[in-house]
Amino acid sequence: MTLHIGFVLFPGIQQLDLTGPYDVLASLPDVKLHLIWKDLAAVTSSTGLILSPTITYAECPTLDVVCVPGGSGVGPLMEDEQTLDFLIAQSQTARYVTSICTGALVLGAAGLLRGRRATTHWAYHDMLSTLGAIPVQERVVRDGNLFTGGGITAGIDFALTLAAELYGEAAAQLVQLQLEYAPAPPFNAGRPDTAPAQVLAEATLRTVESRKTRSQIAARAATRLG
Amino acid sequence: MTLHIGFVLFPGIQQLDLTGPYDVLASLPDVKLHLIWKDLAAVTSSTGLILSPTITYAECPTLDVVCVPGGSGVGPLMEDEQTLDFLIAQSQTARYVTSICTGALVLGAAGLLRGRRATTHWAYHDMLSTLGAIPVQERVVRDGNLFTGGGITAGIDFALTLAAELYGEAAAQLVQLQLEYAPAPPFNAGRPDTAPAQVLAEATLRTVESRKTRSQIAARAATRLG
Repeated sequence: MTLHIGFVLFPGIQQLDLTGPYDVLASLPDVKLHLIWKDLAAVTSSTGLILSPTITYAECPTLDVVCVPGGSGVGPLMEDEQTLDFLIAQSQTARYVTSICTGALVLGAAGLLRGRRATTHWAYHDMLSTLGAIPVQERVVRDGNLFTGGGITAGIDFALTLAAELYGEAAAQLVQLQLEYAPAPPFNAGRPDTAPAQVLAEATLRTVESRKTRSQIAARAATRLG
Repeated sequence: MTLHIGFVLFPGIQQLDLTGPYDVLASLPDVKLHLIWKDLAAVTSSTGLILSPTITYAECPTLDVVCVPGGSGVGPLMEDEQTLDFLIAQSQTARYVTSICTGALVLGAAGLLRGRRATTHWAYHDMLSTLGAIPVQERVVRDGNLFTGGGITAGIDFALTLAAELYGEAAAQLVQLQLEYAPAPPFNAGRPDTAPAQVLAEATLRTVESRKTRSQIAARAATRLG
């Protein structure tokens, strides 16, 4: 039976949040991947790559896996009623509710993280508790049928974890080998605790505005969720 | 001065070969990324994601970095005169000539690997020598202005290496931190020497047909290159 996996595809998505997991999950047997948005017009990702939705919220079938990627467009998404309604509805029937990077904040704004262990991008991690989640500093966090991945590239680790859950370890390992996923970063700067201080300071500086905006949005969501 | 980085975007591209490096390089200051093909019609990647070229071979500006991703469509590309001519022409002026995964076989078919150290996806690595390259088993291989990455996910390590070359280590580390690239694969099956034997056997089985086809193409290319 075909497994339906759907990613929300929105303006300002961080495309690697989606495209990393996409190639992992598309390599599994008998899956159908959906890119879901309000309409089928092409959307521009936060770094400029253009992607096209394959199906609308209205037409989307019942999903086995629903996934929200992150990106610069996450703020508006956290207050978009149509998106939140879609996620709430799908989460009632989906086998797995998932996110990558700041997509977790959207799940949180939909009330889907309350009392549950979750992670998100390091720069926005403190907002999880505002949204009622139990923040966990891990690359991939599982709480029951909720799988959340950390920032951007964590999507690949997330997807391999989910692949093993769906089809077993050997199937996930086969995909890992096909994708030659034996990472060897040339630097060890991928986390705040390993990056040089100057690099962390610069990265933090660049999130000041979006942190301010998203904190306000998260606070409004928390009020709304009661 | 804007740095022009161009990826060949062809039917049957492995989209993660492109999209991983894309988000790394697009995060650098003052770069313009081009997705280049014969025309601007959308192309379907090997796993089904649809991407659109942004410029044609004919209209493409002189590139600072030219990059060939890999994928299931690499065979035909190795004998596509228009593609080979484009790569030969751009390589004469580009600061860096690069590939990810089996994109190296296309550079090889264009005669651009002769006598040079290079890598490619593990399953096709032996074809490098047919094309006159010096095969090297490393994640990212540099030989002068030639940078080649291993299979698929090696594109992220490749792009961070190239980012450091272009803008210095701190700039590359900043991108690494922003992308939270601190990989933590759930399994250690990303290379033939670490994958379980059954997994390697299955992965190898799945490349039998494409290895046969590509071996013949590589042999013809070697004859053509003399």
